[in-house]
Amino acid sequence: MPKPRELYLRRGAERRLCAGHLWVYSNEVDSARSALTDFAVGDWVLVRGSNGQLLGSAYMEPHNLICARVFAAGREASLEELLPGALSTALAGRELAFELPFYRLVYGGSDNLPGLVVDRFGDYLVVQLNNAGIERYESQIISALVDLLQPAGILLRADSRKRREQGLESRVEVVFGEVPEQVELQENGVVFQAPVLSGQKTGWFYDHRMARARLAPYVAGRSVLDVYSYIGGWGVQAAAFGASSVCCLDSSALALDGVKANARLNNLSQVSTLQGSAAESMEALAAQGQHFELVILDPPAFIQRRKDIKKGIKAYRRINELGLKLLAPGGVLVSASCSMHLTRTDLIAAVQSAAVRVGKDLRLIEQGAQGPDHPIHPAIPETEYLKALFFRAL
Amino acid sequence: MPKPRELYLRRGAERRLCAGHLWVYSNEVDSARSALTDFAVGDWVLVRGSNGQLLGSAYMEPHNLICARVFAAGREASLEELLPGALSTALAGRELAFELPFYRLVYGGSDNLPGLVVDRFGDYLVVQLNNAGIERYESQIISALVDLLQPAGILLRADSRKRREQGLESRVEVVFGEVPEQVELQENGVVFQAPVLSGQKTGWFYDHRMARARLAPYVAGRSVLDVYSYIGGWGVQAAAFGASSVCCLDSSALALDGVKANARLNNLSQVSTLQGSAAESMEALAAQGQHFELVILDPPAFIQRRKDIKKGIKAYRRINELGLKLLAPGGVLVSASCSMHLTRTDLIAAVQSAAVRVGKDLRLIEQGAQGPDHPIHPAIPETEYLKALFFRAL
Repeated sequence: MPKPRELYLRRGAERRLCAGHLWVYSNEVDSARSALTDFAVGDWVLVRGSNGQLLGSAYMEPHNLICARVFAAGREASLEELLPGALSTALAGRELAFELPFYRLVYGGSDNLPGLVVDRFGDYLVVQLNNAGIERYESQIISALVDLLQPAGILLRADSRKRREQGLESRVEVVFGEVPEQVELQENGVVFQAPVLSGQKTGWFYDHRMARARLAPYVAGRSVLDVYSYIGGWGVQAAAFGASSVCCLDSSALALDGVKANARLNNLSQVSTLQGSAAESMEALAAQGQHFELVILDPPAFIQRRKDIKKGIKAYRRINELGLKLLAPGGVLVSASCSMHLTRTDLIAAVQSAAVRVGKDLRLIEQGAQGPDHPIHPAIPETEYLKALFFRAL
Repeated sequence: MPKPRELYLRRGAERRLCAGHLWVYSNEVDSARSALTDFAVGDWVLVRGSNGQLLGSAYMEPHNLICARVFAAGREASLEELLPGALSTALAGRELAFELPFYRLVYGGSDNLPGLVVDRFGDYLVVQLNNAGIERYESQIISALVDLLQPAGILLRADSRKRREQGLESRVEVVFGEVPEQVELQENGVVFQAPVLSGQKTGWFYDHRMARARLAPYVAGRSVLDVYSYIGGWGVQAAAFGASSVCCLDSSALALDGVKANARLNNLSQVSTLQGSAAESMEALAAQGQHFELVILDPPAFIQRRKDIKKGIKAYRRINELGLKLLAPGGVLVSASCSMHLTRTDLIAAVQSAAVRVGKDLRLIEQGAQGPDHPIHPAIPETEYLKALFFRAL
C-alpha cells in the first residue's frame, strides 16, 4: 500500500473540518507547504491543520474547487482498507430501516465514501462514480461490493451530469456478472421494473420512498395527476393505494412505456398516460376544465447552481401555479423539489405565492424528506436536497 | 348580529396580510382613523388597507401586540356565521388523514380559528381558549361543536401558559355533558389513557404521532430510553412495536403512574419507569455505564421567547450530549423540540455540536414534523414548531 502524503491547511481553515465537514477547498490549502500541483487525482493524503494536527484522511481532486474529500475524519487510514468496513456500516444502516434489499446502499460522503453512489435492486447493483478521484478506486470498490453481497451483476453508470461538468468521459458498462435491461424492485409493497441501463440516473429514484408511502390516506377513491411521472414511482403507487384514476404526464415516451409496464405488473387498470411538456400539458388540461383531487409535481432540479436560485424559484412558482389550477376543492397538492439550493422554506414560500395568485387557501399537512438510505450528514448541509410537501386546499 | 367596525392599517402595512398572514400588529394600525382604545376585546372588525381595500374579518385583542387576528381573509363575515363551516372543514381534513376519531380537531389560525384549540378523544373534546378575544365566543364555539359531533362531554382547559402571560384567569371546567378523569385514545394502533383534567395541556400530545409511528423499524428487539416521557407516548409505543426493554424517565410521579397504566393497557411488561430530573438521571445512568440502543429526547420547550434562543440552544446541546453518552454504538437518537423559535437547522446544529463533543459520528435518517392535524399555514411560519429528528450513530 502506498504511503499517504501530507496536505496542510492554512491557519484558521481547520474549523469546518473540526466541526465534522468533509470537504477541503483549494483556497484553504497552504500551498507553500503542500502545493496542489504536486498531487495526482485520487492520491491518498493526510489532511493537517496549520499546527500539524491530523484532521483526517482524504483523496485528492487537485483540479477541483473541492480539492480533497475526507473519508476518515481524525485518523490515518487508506480508502482501500476502510472500504469493507464502510460498506458494512452502510449496509447495516439500510437493513435497520428496510426489510427488503431495495435501497440506495451508498450515498457518498454521508457514508464516508465521497463521490460513490450505489443503488441496490436485490441481486443487482448500480454504481455511480461521480468524480475522477473516486474512480481511481473503481476496482477495489467493485471487489468489496462483490465480497459483501455476492451480487448477480454490477452495472457502472459513470455518466452523471456532475461527471460531464468535470469533463470526465461517460461510461456505462456491466463490470461484474450480468445485468438485464430492466431490474425488479419493491417500494412500499408495490412492484416496479427500473430501466437501469437506459433510464435516468441509476434507473430509479429511491429517495422519495417515505413520502410516497404517505400518499395512501390521500388517494383512496380519488383522481390523481402525476406530473413529471418518469416510470410511475408516484402514480403507480397512488393507483396501488386505491386511487380511482391516475394520469401520468411526462415528456418521454420511453418513461411512459415504463409507466404502462409498471401498472400492468401490479394489475392496475386505472393508470393512463399523457405525453407532453409539463407546463403545456397542464395548461391544456386546465383549458379543458379538468380537475384532480391529488396533484403531484416532482420536477427535475430547476436549480443546478447557486446563481440560478432566483430564476429557479420562479420556475417552481410557475409549475405550482399550474398544478393548483388543476386541483379540485379540498384536494391535496404534493409539491416536490430535488434542488439542493432550494430550501424547504423557499419551496413553501413559492407554493404559497402561487396559491395567493390563484386564490387558493393552502395548509401544509405533511413534509417528506429523503429516506434513511439517503442519510444527511449533520455537518454537511449539502447532503440534504429533497423535499416533498403535501398541501391541502381548504 | 352586531355590525363590524373598521380597522384601518397604515400605508404599507397591508403587505403581510396580502401574502396570506393573519395577524395585525398594533403598530400597523392607523390610529387616527381607528384608535385601538375604541375597541373592546373580541370585537368583530373589518381590516382595511390604507386605501380602504378589505383585507379580511378579524376579532380584536386591542391590548396585545397582535391586536387583531383575521379569521376570514379577504371577506366580510362574522365568526359566529363562519364557525360551523370552519369546524366542518377542519373535521374533513382530519377525516382525510386519519381513520379513527383521535386527533387535534382545531389548530388555531391554521384552521381559521385563531386562539382556539380542540383535541378530540372519540366522544370527548378538550377545548383551549388561548386568548380573551376568542373567549368571547365560547358559548358559540361549544354549541357549534355539539352540533357537529354530538360529543358525550366537552372539557374546557383554559389554563394555558399563554393565558397566564396575558393575565387571564385559569379555568378548567366541564362545559358540556360529562368528562371522566381519564379518556381513552388510540395512536398508531396503541391504546392510551390520557388524564385530560389534570395532565399537561389537553392531557395528550397528538403532534408527534407521525414521528412515533416511525419508531417501528428502529426499536424491534432493542433497548429504549424515553427521556421526558410524560405518560409514555413514545416509550409505550416503542414497547408495543417490539422493543426488548423501555425505560421511561420523568420528574413527575403522576406522569410515571400514567406510563404504568398505559403499559398495562397494552399488556406490555418490558416498560420500567425512573423518576428524576432528566439531566441528573441521565448523568447517573452514564456513571453506571448504562447504554441504550435507542434514546428519545422530547423535552418541554426550552425556548419560550425569541430572546432566549441562545440560552435555549445551549440547553438542547446539553441534553443531547447527555443522551448521546447513553447511546450504544450503531444506536439511534431521536431528538425532538417543540420550541417554535428553534429552527430545524438550529436543532441539527445543536445535535451535531453535541456529537463532536462526545466523539460520535451521526447521520440524520428521518425528519419528523407535526402531523396533518397540526396543519402549518404556509404564510404564517409561527404555526410550525415541532421537530423530531432521528440520528443514527455510525
